[in-house]
Amino acid sequence: MITELQAYLKDEFGIDFNDPSLLAEAFTQASYVNEHPKEHLKFYERIEFLGDAVLQLFVSEYIYRRYPELPQGRLTRLRAAMVCEDSFSKFALECHFDQYIRLGHGEELAGARKRPSLLCDIFESFIGALYLDQGRPAVEKFIQRVIFPKLDQGWFDHAVDAKTSLQEFLQRNGDVEIEYHLLHEGGSENEPVFTVSVSANGKQIGEGTGSSKKHAEMAAAQVALQALRQIKK
Amino acid sequence: MITELQAYLKDEFGIDFNDPSLLAEAFTQASYVNEHPKEHLKFYERIEFLGDAVLQLFVSEYIYRRYPELPQGRLTRLRAAMVCEDSFSKFALECHFDQYIRLGHGEELAGARKRPSLLCDIFESFIGALYLDQGRPAVEKFIQRVIFPKLDQGWFDHAVDAKTSLQEFLQRNGDVEIEYHLLHEGGSENEPVFTVSVSANGKQIGEGTGSSKKHAEMAAAQVALQALRQIKK
Repeated sequence: MITELQAYLKDEFGIDFNDPSLLAEAFTQASYVNEHPKEHLKFYERIEFLGDAVLQLFVSEYIYRRYPELPQGRLTRLRAAMVCEDSFSKFALECHFDQYIRLGHGEELAGARKRPSLLCDIFESFIGALYLDQGRPAVEKFIQRVIFPKLDQGWFDHAVDAKTSLQEFLQRNGDVEIEYHLLHEGGSENEPVFTVSVSANGKQIGEGTGSSKKHAEMAAAQVALQALRQIKK
Repeated sequence: MITELQAYLKDEFGIDFNDPSLLAEAFTQASYVNEHPKEHLKFYERIEFLGDAVLQLFVSEYIYRRYPELPQGRLTRLRAAMVCEDSFSKFALECHFDQYIRLGHGEELAGARKRPSLLCDIFESFIGALYLDQGRPAVEKFIQRVIFPKLDQGWFDHAVDAKTSLQEFLQRNGDVEIEYHLLHEGGSENEPVFTVSVSANGKQIGEGTGSSKKHAEMAAAQVALQALRQIKK
Protein backbone atom coordinates (compact mmCIF):
# COMPACT_ATOMS: atom_id res chain seq x y z
CA MET A 1 0.00 0.00 0.00
CA ILE A 2 2.90 2.35 0.77
CA THR A 3 4.50 1.56 -2.60
CA GLU A 4 1.22 2.48 -4.32
CA LEU A 5 1.07 5.66 -2.24
CA GLN A 6 4.60 6.57 -3.28
CA ALA A 7 3.76 6.10 -6.95
CA TYR A 8 0.52 8.05 -6.55
CA LEU A 9 2.25 11.00 -4.87
CA LYS A 10 4.84 11.09 -7.63
CA ASP A 11 2.21 10.97 -10.38
CA GLU A 12 -0.31 13.31 -8.86
CA PHE A 13 1.84 15.83 -6.99
CA GLY A 14 5.36 15.31 -8.31
CA ILE A 15 6.47 14.36 -4.79
CA ASP A 16 9.21 11.72 -4.68
CA PHE A 17 9.89 10.59 -1.11
CA ASN A 18 13.52 9.95 -0.21
CA ASP A 19 12.62 7.99 2.91
CA PRO A 20 9.51 5.85 2.34
CA SER A 21 9.60 4.75 5.99
CA LEU A 22 8.45 8.26 6.97
CA LEU A 23 5.54 7.92 4.59
CA ALA A 24 4.72 4.48 6.01
CA GLU A 25 4.77 5.89 9.54
CA ALA A 26 2.53 8.79 8.53
CA PHE A 27 -0.15 6.51 7.05
CA THR A 28 -0.17 3.81 9.73
CA GLN A 29 -2.71 3.79 12.55
CA ALA A 30 -1.96 2.22 15.94
CA SER A 31 -4.52 -0.55 15.29
CA TYR A 32 -2.44 -1.77 12.34
CA VAL A 33 0.75 -1.74 14.39
CA ASN A 34 -0.95 -3.82 17.09
CA GLU A 35 -2.02 -6.42 14.54
CA HIS A 36 1.52 -6.72 13.12
CA PRO A 37 3.67 -6.91 16.25
CA LYS A 38 6.57 -8.64 14.49
CA GLU A 39 7.09 -5.85 12.00
CA HIS A 40 8.06 -3.27 14.67
CA LEU A 41 6.09 -0.56 12.93
CA LYS A 42 5.59 3.01 14.03
CA PHE A 43 2.25 4.76 13.87
CA TYR A 44 1.50 8.27 12.81
CA GLU A 45 1.01 10.16 16.06
CA ARG A 46 4.47 11.66 16.54
CA ILE A 47 4.70 12.83 12.93
CA GLU A 48 1.20 14.23 13.21
CA PHE A 49 2.33 16.27 16.25
CA LEU A 50 4.96 17.88 14.03
CA GLY A 51 2.73 18.25 10.95
CA ASP A 52 0.10 20.08 12.97
CA ALA A 53 2.66 22.74 13.95
CA VAL A 54 3.98 22.97 10.37
CA LEU A 55 0.47 23.65 9.05
CA GLN A 56 -0.21 26.13 11.83
CA LEU A 57 2.84 28.21 10.90
CA PHE A 58 2.57 28.02 7.12
CA VAL A 59 -1.13 28.93 7.13
CA SER A 60 -0.48 31.74 9.65
CA GLU A 61 2.30 33.17 7.54
CA TYR A 62 0.25 32.99 4.36
CA ILE A 63 -2.78 34.81 5.76
CA TYR A 64 -0.57 37.27 7.66
CA ARG A 65 0.99 38.35 4.35
CA ARG A 66 -2.14 38.08 2.23
CA TYR A 67 -4.36 40.17 4.50
CA PRO A 68 -2.07 43.00 5.64
CA GLU A 69 -4.98 44.96 7.11
CA LEU A 70 -6.75 42.15 8.95
CA PRO A 71 -6.51 42.58 12.73
CA GLN A 72 -5.28 39.74 14.92
CA GLY A 73 -8.72 38.62 16.06
CA ARG A 74 -9.86 38.00 12.51
CA LEU A 75 -6.59 36.37 11.51
CA THR A 76 -7.08 34.01 14.44
CA ARG A 77 -10.65 33.22 13.39
CA LEU A 78 -9.60 32.63 9.80
CA ARG A 79 -6.75 30.36 10.83
CA ALA A 80 -9.07 28.41 13.10
CA ALA A 81 -11.42 27.86 10.15
CA MET A 82 -8.55 26.67 7.94
CA VAL A 83 -6.58 24.63 10.48
CA CYS A 84 -9.30 22.33 11.82
CA GLU A 85 -10.65 18.83 11.54
CA ASP A 86 -13.40 19.81 9.17
CA SER A 87 -11.03 21.37 6.60
CA PHE A 88 -8.20 18.89 6.93
CA SER A 89 -10.46 15.85 6.64
CA LYS A 90 -11.88 17.29 3.41
CA PHE A 91 -8.39 17.98 2.05
CA ALA A 92 -7.40 14.39 2.91
CA LEU A 93 -10.38 13.03 0.97
CA GLU A 94 -9.74 15.33 -1.95
CA CYS A 95 -6.16 14.00 -2.07
CA HIS A 96 -7.49 10.42 -1.83
CA PHE A 97 -5.38 9.82 1.26
CA ASP A 98 -8.18 7.67 2.73
CA GLN A 99 -7.27 4.91 0.25
CA TYR A 100 -3.76 4.53 1.62
CA ILE A 101 -4.25 4.42 5.40
CA ARG A 102 -3.05 1.21 7.07
CA LEU A 103 -5.75 0.20 9.55
CA GLY A 104 -6.39 -2.81 11.78
CA HIS A 105 -9.37 -5.03 10.89
CA GLY A 106 -11.54 -3.82 13.74
CA GLU A 107 -11.02 -0.17 12.82
CA GLU A 108 -11.67 -0.97 9.17
CA LEU A 109 -14.97 -2.62 10.03
CA ALA A 110 -15.89 0.30 12.30
CA GLY A 111 -15.58 2.63 9.31
CA ALA A 112 -12.48 4.48 10.54
CA ARG A 113 -11.23 5.00 6.98
CA LYS A 114 -13.89 7.69 6.43
CA ARG A 115 -13.84 9.11 9.97
CA PRO A 116 -13.07 12.86 9.85
CA SER A 117 -10.84 12.78 12.95
CA LEU A 118 -8.61 10.09 11.43
CA LEU A 119 -8.55 11.78 8.01
CA CYS A 120 -7.53 15.02 9.69
CA ASP A 121 -4.75 13.26 11.60
CA ILE A 122 -3.47 11.63 8.40
CA PHE A 123 -3.45 14.94 6.56
CA GLU A 124 -1.33 16.42 9.36
CA SER A 125 0.99 13.42 9.56
CA PHE A 126 1.49 13.49 5.78
CA ILE A 127 2.53 17.14 6.06
CA GLY A 128 4.89 16.22 8.92
CA ALA A 129 6.49 13.49 6.82
CA LEU A 130 6.78 15.76 3.79
CA TYR A 131 8.43 18.44 5.94
CA LEU A 132 10.94 15.98 7.42
CA ASP A 133 11.70 14.37 4.08
CA GLN A 134 11.79 17.32 1.71
CA GLY A 135 11.80 20.47 3.81
CA ARG A 136 9.82 23.64 3.71
CA PRO A 137 9.58 24.36 -0.06
CA ALA A 138 7.88 21.03 -0.82
CA VAL A 139 5.28 21.63 1.89
CA GLU A 140 4.65 25.13 0.60
CA LYS A 141 4.18 23.88 -2.94
CA PHE A 142 1.74 21.22 -1.75
CA ILE A 143 -0.41 23.50 0.39
CA GLN A 144 -0.36 26.20 -2.28
CA ARG A 145 -2.16 23.67 -4.44
CA VAL A 146 -4.39 21.98 -1.85
CA ILE A 147 -5.23 24.60 0.80
CA PHE A 148 -4.79 28.17 -0.34
CA PRO A 149 -7.01 28.10 -3.46
CA LYS A 150 -9.92 27.33 -1.11
CA LEU A 151 -9.69 30.89 0.15
CA ASP A 152 -10.66 32.14 -3.31
CA GLN A 153 -13.31 29.47 -3.60
CA GLY A 154 -15.01 30.84 -0.50
CA TRP A 155 -14.48 27.84 1.82
CA PHE A 156 -13.65 30.09 4.74
CA ASP A 157 -15.92 33.05 4.05
CA HIS A 158 -17.75 32.40 7.33
CA ALA A 159 -14.52 33.25 9.18
CA VAL A 160 -13.60 36.39 7.27
CA ASP A 161 -16.76 38.42 6.80
CA ALA A 162 -18.00 38.82 3.24
CA LYS A 163 -17.31 42.58 3.12
CA THR A 164 -13.66 42.00 3.97
CA SER A 165 -13.41 39.15 1.45
CA LEU A 166 -14.95 41.26 -1.28
CA GLN A 167 -12.59 44.13 -0.54
CA GLU A 168 -9.61 41.82 -0.59
CA PHE A 169 -10.81 40.17 -3.81
CA LEU A 170 -11.35 43.44 -5.66
CA GLN A 171 -8.32 45.30 -4.40
CA ARG A 172 -5.75 42.62 -5.06
CA ASN A 173 -4.73 44.23 -8.34
CA GLY A 174 -4.97 47.85 -7.29
CA ASP A 175 -7.29 50.27 -5.61
CA VAL A 176 -11.01 49.89 -6.26
CA GLU A 177 -13.66 52.11 -4.72
CA ILE A 178 -16.34 49.98 -3.05
CA GLU A 179 -19.60 51.61 -2.00
CA TYR A 180 -22.75 50.36 -0.32
CA HIS A 181 -26.08 52.13 -0.96
CA LEU A 182 -29.35 51.68 0.86
CA LEU A 183 -31.90 51.05 -1.90
CA HIS A 184 -35.00 50.32 0.12
CA GLU A 185 -36.24 50.08 3.69
CA GLY A 186 -39.38 47.99 4.09
CA GLY A 187 -41.02 45.30 6.16
CA SER A 188 -42.73 46.09 9.45
CA GLU A 189 -41.44 47.90 12.51
CA ASN A 190 -40.76 44.58 14.23
CA GLU A 191 -39.40 42.89 11.14
CA PRO A 192 -37.68 45.53 9.02
CA VAL A 193 -36.15 44.52 5.68
CA PHE A 194 -33.26 46.53 4.27
CA THR A 195 -32.11 46.27 0.68
CA VAL A 196 -28.60 47.38 -0.14
CA SER A 197 -26.53 47.46 -3.31
CA VAL A 198 -22.77 47.26 -3.56
CA SER A 199 -20.79 48.87 -6.35
CA ALA A 200 -17.17 48.78 -7.48
CA ASN A 201 -15.89 51.96 -9.12
CA GLY A 202 -19.48 53.08 -9.58
CA LYS A 203 -20.72 49.87 -11.22
CA GLN A 204 -23.27 47.84 -9.27
CA ILE A 205 -22.02 44.28 -8.67
CA GLY A 206 -24.48 42.92 -6.14
CA GLU A 207 -27.64 43.42 -4.12
CA GLY A 208 -28.74 41.95 -0.82
CA THR A 209 -31.41 42.12 1.85
CA GLY A 210 -31.25 41.72 5.61
CA SER A 211 -32.90 42.57 8.92
CA SER A 212 -30.36 45.37 9.45
CA LYS A 213 -28.33 47.58 7.16
CA LYS A 214 -25.23 45.68 8.14
CA HIS A 215 -26.77 42.30 7.37
CA ALA A 216 -27.98 43.58 4.01
CA GLU A 217 -24.47 44.82 3.20
CA MET A 218 -23.00 41.43 4.08
CA ALA A 219 -25.58 39.72 1.87
CA ALA A 220 -24.81 42.10 -1.01
CA ALA A 221 -21.08 41.50 -0.64
CA GLN A 222 -21.68 37.74 -0.61
CA VAL A 223 -23.75 37.94 -3.83
CA ALA A 224 -21.08 40.08 -5.49
CA LEU A 225 -18.32 37.69 -4.41
CA GLN A 226 -20.16 34.66 -5.79
CA ALA A 227 -20.77 36.44 -9.10
CA LEU A 228 -17.14 37.57 -9.38
CA ARG A 229 -15.89 34.08 -8.61
CA GLN A 230 -18.16 32.67 -11.32
CA ILE A 231 -16.65 35.10 -13.83
CA LYS A 232 -13.13 34.19 -12.76
CA LYS A 233 -13.82 30.51 -13.49
CA MET B 1 13.42 53.55 22.79
CA ILE B 2 13.49 51.49 19.60
CA THR B 3 16.95 52.81 18.73
CA GLU B 4 18.18 51.67 22.16
CA LEU B 5 16.52 48.31 21.60
CA GLN B 6 18.25 47.95 18.24
CA ALA B 7 21.63 48.68 19.80
CA TYR B 8 20.93 46.32 22.69
CA LEU B 9 19.94 43.44 20.38
CA LYS B 10 23.10 43.95 18.35
CA ASP B 11 25.32 44.02 21.44
CA GLU B 12 23.67 41.27 23.38
CA PHE B 13 22.52 38.84 20.68
CA GLY B 14 24.37 39.91 17.53
CA ILE B 15 21.00 40.64 15.90
CA ASP B 16 21.03 43.56 13.46
CA PHE B 17 17.52 44.40 12.26
CA ASN B 18 17.18 45.40 8.61
CA ASP B 19 13.75 46.88 9.11
CA PRO B 20 13.49 48.69 12.48
CA SER B 21 9.80 49.41 11.84
CA LEU B 22 9.09 45.71 12.41
CA LEU B 23 10.87 45.93 15.73
CA ALA B 24 8.92 49.07 16.63
CA GLU B 25 5.65 47.33 15.79
CA ALA B 26 6.61 44.30 17.87
CA PHE B 27 7.32 46.36 20.98
CA THR B 28 4.37 48.75 20.79
CA GLN B 29 1.18 48.18 22.74
CA ALA B 30 -2.22 49.45 21.56
CA SER B 31 -2.36 51.95 24.45
CA TYR B 32 0.74 53.72 23.09
CA VAL B 33 -0.72 53.88 19.58
CA ASN B 34 -3.91 55.44 20.96
CA GLU B 35 -1.92 58.13 22.73
CA HIS B 36 0.03 59.01 19.58
CA PRO B 37 -2.69 59.13 16.92
CA LYS B 38 -0.70 61.37 14.58
CA GLU B 39 2.18 58.93 14.25
CA HIS B 40 0.04 56.24 12.55
CA LEU B 41 1.77 53.50 14.51
CA LYS B 42 1.04 49.80 14.44
CA PHE B 43 0.83 47.70 17.56
CA TYR B 44 2.19 44.24 18.14
CA GLU B 45 -0.86 41.99 17.82
CA ARG B 46 -0.54 40.88 14.20
CA ILE B 47 3.17 40.13 14.53
CA GLU B 48 2.47 38.28 17.76
CA PHE B 49 -0.06 36.11 15.87
CA LEU B 50 2.76 35.06 13.56
CA GLY B 51 5.43 34.74 16.26
CA ASP B 52 3.24 32.40 18.27
CA ALA B 53 3.05 29.98 15.32
CA VAL B 54 6.79 30.29 14.67
CA LEU B 55 7.57 29.32 18.26
CA GLN B 56 5.04 26.51 18.17
CA LEU B 57 6.73 24.93 15.14
CA PHE B 58 10.36 25.46 16.14
CA VAL B 59 9.81 24.11 19.66
CA SER B 60 7.81 21.17 18.27
CA GLU B 61 10.53 20.31 15.79
CA TYR B 62 13.26 20.55 18.40
CA ILE B 63 11.61 18.24 20.91
CA TYR B 64 10.41 15.90 18.14
CA ARG B 65 14.05 15.36 17.13
CA ARG B 66 15.54 15.45 20.59
CA TYR B 67 13.19 12.88 22.13
CA PRO B 68 12.81 10.27 19.40
CA GLU B 69 11.13 7.82 21.77
CA LEU B 70 8.67 10.18 23.45
CA PRO B 71 5.07 9.40 22.46
CA GLN B 72 2.81 12.14 21.16
CA GLY B 73 0.95 12.71 24.42
CA ARG B 74 4.16 13.54 26.25
CA LEU B 75 5.51 15.66 23.40
CA THR B 76 2.28 17.63 23.58
CA ARG B 77 2.59 18.09 27.35
CA LEU B 78 6.21 19.14 27.06
CA ARG B 79 5.40 21.63 24.31
CA ALA B 80 2.55 23.05 26.36
CA ALA B 81 4.97 23.62 29.26
CA MET B 82 7.48 25.34 26.99
CA VAL B 83 5.09 27.34 24.81
CA CYS B 84 3.04 29.13 27.45
CA GLU B 85 2.64 32.46 29.18
CA ASP B 86 4.62 31.39 32.22
CA SER B 87 7.72 30.42 30.21
CA PHE B 88 7.57 33.18 27.63
CA SER B 89 7.10 35.92 30.20
CA LYS B 90 10.18 34.66 32.04
CA PHE B 91 12.20 34.55 28.82
CA ALA B 92 11.09 38.11 28.04
CA LEU B 93 12.30 39.30 31.46
CA GLU B 94 15.56 37.39 31.14
CA CYS B 95 16.12 39.15 27.79
CA HIS B 96 15.23 42.53 29.41
CA PHE B 97 12.48 43.04 26.84
CA ASP B 98 10.31 44.68 29.52
CA GLN B 99 12.55 47.76 29.36
CA TYR B 100 11.77 48.43 25.71
CA ILE B 101 7.98 48.09 25.51
CA ARG B 102 6.15 51.23 24.36
CA LEU B 103 3.14 51.64 26.64
CA GLY B 104 0.50 54.29 27.15
CA HIS B 105 0.57 56.21 30.45
CA GLY B 106 -2.45 54.45 31.93
CA GLU B 107 -1.02 51.02 31.21
CA GLU B 108 2.34 52.10 32.59
CA LEU B 109 0.73 53.24 35.84
CA ALA B 110 -1.29 50.02 36.03
CA GLY B 111 1.99 48.06 36.05
CA ALA B 112 1.54 46.50 32.59
CA ARG B 113 5.29 46.48 31.99
CA LYS B 114 5.72 43.55 34.40
CA ARG B 115 2.42 41.82 33.56
CA PRO B 116 3.14 38.23 32.48
CA SER B 117 0.49 38.25 29.72
CA LEU B 118 2.03 41.34 28.10
CA LEU B 119 5.59 40.03 28.50
CA CYS B 120 4.51 36.79 26.86
CA ASP B 121 2.91 38.67 23.96
CA ILE B 122 6.05 40.76 23.48
CA PHE B 123 8.26 37.69 23.45
CA GLU B 124 6.07 36.22 20.72
CA SER B 125 5.92 39.43 18.71
CA PHE B 126 9.69 39.82 18.92
CA ILE B 127 10.05 36.30 17.47
CA GLY B 128 7.56 37.20 14.74
CA ALA B 129 9.54 40.32 13.83
CA LEU B 130 12.83 38.42 13.87
CA TYR B 131 11.33 35.76 11.61
CA LEU B 132 10.01 38.33 9.13
CA ASP B 133 13.21 40.37 9.16
CA GLN B 134 15.90 37.71 9.20
CA GLY B 135 14.24 34.38 8.49
CA ARG B 136 14.39 31.03 10.12
CA PRO B 137 18.13 30.68 10.97
CA ALA B 138 18.16 33.83 13.12
CA VAL B 139 15.15 32.63 15.10
CA GLU B 140 16.72 29.23 15.60
CA LYS B 141 19.96 30.77 16.83
CA PHE B 142 18.05 32.97 19.26
CA ILE B 143 15.87 30.24 20.74
CA GLN B 144 18.81 27.86 20.92
CA ARG B 145 20.29 30.35 23.33
CA VAL B 146 17.18 31.48 25.19
CA ILE B 147 14.77 28.53 25.28
CA PHE B 148 16.41 25.16 24.68
CA PRO B 149 19.06 25.27 27.47
CA LYS B 150 16.16 25.45 29.93
CA LEU B 151 15.39 21.83 29.10
CA ASP B 152 18.75 20.80 30.55
CA GLN B 153 18.26 23.14 33.48
CA GLY B 154 15.11 21.28 34.44
CA TRP B 155 12.59 24.07 33.81
CA PHE B 156 10.13 21.67 32.21
CA ASP B 157 10.75 18.54 34.27
CA HIS B 158 7.17 18.67 35.51
CA ALA B 159 5.98 18.06 31.94
CA VAL B 160 8.34 15.23 31.06
CA ASP B 161 8.41 12.93 34.06
CA ALA B 162 11.73 12.67 35.88
CA LYS B 163 12.33 9.05 34.84
CA THR B 164 12.07 9.99 31.18
CA SER B 165 14.30 13.04 31.67
CA LEU B 166 16.91 10.98 33.48
CA GLN B 167 16.89 8.36 30.74
CA GLU B 168 17.21 11.01 28.06
CA PHE B 169 19.99 12.77 29.98
CA LEU B 170 22.03 9.61 30.48
CA GLN B 171 21.48 8.02 27.09
CA ARG B 172 22.28 11.03 24.97
CA ASN B 173 25.82 9.81 24.39
CA GLY B 174 25.08 6.11 24.04
CA ASP B 175 23.29 3.31 25.79
CA VAL B 176 23.25 3.31 29.58
CA GLU B 177 21.52 0.67 31.67
CA ILE B 178 19.23 2.33 34.20
CA GLU B 179 17.81 0.24 37.05
CA TYR B 180 15.50 0.99 39.96
CA HIS B 181 15.72 -1.13 43.14
CA LEU B 182 13.33 -1.22 46.07
CA LEU B 183 15.54 -0.68 49.12
CA HIS B 184 12.94 -0.49 51.84
CA GLU B 185 9.20 -0.69 52.46
CA GLY B 186 8.09 0.98 55.70
CA GLY B 187 5.52 3.29 57.21
CA SER B 188 2.09 2.04 58.23
CA GLU B 189 -0.52 0.15 56.22
CA ASN B 190 -2.43 3.39 55.60
CA GLU B 191 0.67 5.47 54.97
CA PRO B 192 3.30 3.25 53.39
CA VAL B 193 6.74 4.67 52.60
CA PHE B 194 8.81 3.16 49.84
CA THR B 195 12.51 3.83 49.37
CA VAL B 196 14.01 3.21 45.95
CA SER B 197 17.48 3.63 44.50
CA VAL B 198 18.37 4.30 40.89
CA SER B 199 21.60 3.15 39.28
CA ALA B 200 23.31 3.76 35.96
CA ASN B 201 25.43 0.88 34.65
CA GLY B 202 25.42 -0.60 38.14
CA LYS B 203 26.49 2.56 39.98
CA GLN B 204 23.92 4.12 42.34
CA ILE B 205 23.22 7.73 41.40
CA GLY B 206 20.15 8.61 43.48
CA GLU B 207 17.70 7.55 46.16
CA GLY B 208 14.13 8.63 46.79
CA THR B 209 11.07 7.91 48.90
CA GLY B 210 7.38 8.03 48.12
CA SER B 211 3.95 6.74 49.04
CA SER B 212 4.13 4.24 46.17
CA LYS B 213 6.95 2.45 44.38
CA LYS B 214 6.31 4.65 41.35
CA HIS B 215 6.48 7.88 43.34
CA ALA B 216 9.68 6.73 45.01
CA GLU B 217 11.22 5.99 41.60
CA MET B 218 10.27 9.45 40.37
CA ALA B 219 11.83 11.01 43.45
CA ALA B 220 15.02 8.97 42.99
CA ALA B 221 15.24 9.97 39.32
CA GLN B 222 14.76 13.62 40.30
CA VAL B 223 17.56 13.43 42.87
CA ALA B 224 19.87 11.76 40.34
CA LEU B 225 19.04 14.37 37.71
CA GLN B 226 19.78 17.26 40.04
CA ALA B 227 23.10 15.70 41.05
CA LEU B 228 24.09 15.04 37.43
CA ARG B 229 23.20 18.56 36.42
CA GLN B 230 25.35 19.93 39.25
CA ILE B 231 28.30 17.91 37.97
CA LYS B 232 27.73 19.12 34.39
CA LYS B 233 27.96 22.77 35.55
